[in-house]
Amino acid sequence: MSWQLKAADLPDLARGATLLGTGGGGDPYIGMMLVKQVLGTGSITILDPDEIADDLFVIPTAQMGAPTVMIEKIPAGTEPTLALRTLEEHLGRTADATMPIECGGINSMIPLLVAAETGLPVVDADGMGRAFPELSMETFAVYGVHGSPLALAGERGERVIIDTGDDDKQMEWLARGITIRLGGVGHIAEYAMSGADVKRTAVPRTISMALSLGRAIRLAREQHRSPFSAIADTLSSTLYSNVVELFEGKVTDVERRTTDGFAKGRAAISALDPTSNQTLEILFQNENLIARRDGEVVAIVPDLICVVDHESAEPITTEGLRYGQRVRVLGISTPDMMRTPAALAAFGPTAFGLSEAFVPVETRA
Amino acid sequence: MSWQLKAADLPDLARGATLLGTGGGGDPYIGMMLVKQVLGTGSITILDPDEIADDLFVIPTAQMGAPTVMIEKIPAGTEPTLALRTLEEHLGRTADATMPIECGGINSMIPLLVAAETGLPVVDADGMGRAFPELSMETFAVYGVHGSPLALAGERGERVIIDTGDDDKQMEWLARGITIRLGGVGHIAEYAMSGADVKRTAVPRTISMALSLGRAIRLAREQHRSPFSAIADTLSSTLYSNVVELFEGKVTDVERRTTDGFAKGRAAISALDPTSNQTLEILFQNENLIARRDGEVVAIVPDLICVVDHESAEPITTEGLRYGQRVRVLGISTPDMMRTPAALAAFGPTAFGLSEAFVPVETRA
Repeated sequence: MSWQLKAADLPDLARGATLLGTGGGGDPYIGMMLVKQVLGTGSITILDPDEIADDLFVIPTAQMGAPTVMIEKIPAGTEPTLALRTLEEHLGRTADATMPIECGGINSMIPLLVAAETGLPVVDADGMGRAFPELSMETFAVYGVHGSPLALAGERGERVIIDTGDDDKQMEWLARGITIRLGGVGHIAEYAMSGADVKRTAVPRTISMALSLGRAIRLAREQHRSPFSAIADTLSSTLYSNVVELFEGKVTDVERRTTDGFAKGRAAISALDPTSNQTLEILFQNENLIARRDGEVVAIVPDLICVVDHESAEPITTEGLRYGQRVRVLGISTPDMMRTPAALAAFGPTAFGLSEAFVPVETRA
Repeated sequence: MSWQLKAADLPDLARGATLLGTGGGGDPYIGMMLVKQVLGTGSITILDPDEIADDLFVIPTAQMGAPTVMIEKIPAGTEPTLALRTLEEHLGRTADATMPIECGGINSMIPLLVAAETGLPVVDADGMGRAFPELSMETFAVYGVHGSPLALAGERGERVIIDTGDDDKQMEWLARGITIRLGGVGHIAEYAMSGADVKRTAVPRTISMALSLGRAIRLAREQHRSPFSAIADTLSSTLYSNVVELFEGKVTDVERRTTDGFAKGRAAISALDPTSNQTLEILFQNENLIARRDGEVVAIVPDLICVVDHESAEPITTEGLRYGQRVRVLGISTPDMMRTPAALAAFGPTAFGLSEAFVPVETRA
């Protein structure tokens, strides 16, 4: 069922989206502030993907860049709508709705900003079912909708259109080049598609899931219940039904570098118990990619690896990792449509240069 | 007067264009072979800029990239026409003619390739009056015609449109980013303009000048006359009337690196006379920028600094410079429209980070 999203919902949505960002996706806080400012006391119509018309014309909108840059280079706020308008003009067709390309991090907010500015509704679905670092890592692309033509807007009104036909990796490569030259952040409109395409290729109801997750964590804290149980309970009725606690410990090492337009690095988390030598190591490229406990893989992309505060369950992004933080690490299973051979080729371990095979997090546990 | 260019004219045109490339512009040989192949026994109509209609719609076409890459990464040949078609589609208007953006090097050939493929005529004018390394270094831009929107095509059919409004330096910056990601070479259509704009902003008759130069050098060799006198005689009746021999010697040092999408470096040329300690040093960024004889500036951008074989006057590009070559270095004056304060701001010494002021080569001599 379609529903109305209001400014009061945004902090919960941001919390849930940061969890689904699995360490990356960019901090949604800045995006939330931009949406709040434009939305005021209004509301945004969120469309259930099962209920949209097959010929609804949807243009997803997003921010792209390294999360480390995103938190320092604040957008003017008008760029994503400029990207949408640029793509509309190029296609000679106006959008009936926008949609996220990823449900994690700041990109949960960018389509809401466009909606608040334009009055367009937002489809409750996305193409990553979490956050991924590259524009080609989309269920849209896996199931036959391609990203080109892509429109990219910069803060000084720069407008770029990129068309690489069916080659979504080349689209990502060229768009990343522009984003780097824009200072590390760009705003995009891409993967224009019909309502029928949305039903066939998108991960459904991820905006409402992020909102439910964030709300459940907050309510549990307010009611002095375990936020970890709240996360598991909320996800149990979704396509992300398995939640595994992978580790609890203290951050003892973080290496992070912004290179080639990405934030890449690793974190080490050591057991709190001084008699234990156990260590969990996480590698990331914007998002957490693999978690190894004493060298043994316990979770791997595309399953979610989420680092959260050990008490409040507040999600911690890769750029927020600090020495000494006490954290828990959760593994969360992804929907079946994200684990097919075609999906794993697009955003499974080999897509990130990892030699380890994908094994579902619930199987490892 | 309009005239017909045939395949037999191409070697002379290439030789003259290499001289006007002032070390850069890319080797026109590959471009010439592509034009020959498409043109066959046909001909290309070259339009005199004074005779074109004010409402003629002109879309210039070119190759961009580092000359060091251009000679290794051979274009398929269809890219520049794809760039033209992409810009036509974006503007909703078809071109009546194409034109060079620079008259030096391979970009003397690219518009001819487009003409041979499409049947369009080519306007006998350009926007650099030589070769320059950046897309913003155009008399077009200096006199009020801007490069955006620019269309860029890659060898795998990639199509990119860049619109930075009046900011031609940002256009260059973004297009260069795409070109680097395409492997170092891209093909472009930009600076779309009217016939009236051409008359106001372009350096006139530079295709015919390049052809005359190349032909004069060849004929002088065939007739055992001095090719250096032939160069001076040919230019005496053009807007490039001053030719100064700056140095004669042997290449004793070449440093060259391909960085940020450019070929940058320096060459040292030492006097042949063993009793002389004189050395000429040339700095280049794709093109030769400044020549210092024993530390004293003898020629500087935008004037032409041309390194040629000491006997045959065959022009030598920066990527063709080799230790031991015996060369002469010529300084050639540029037209007055390239020496105004606005022109010097766009492509004078400061535009290349040089602290030396511009002084006309004929004044220094």
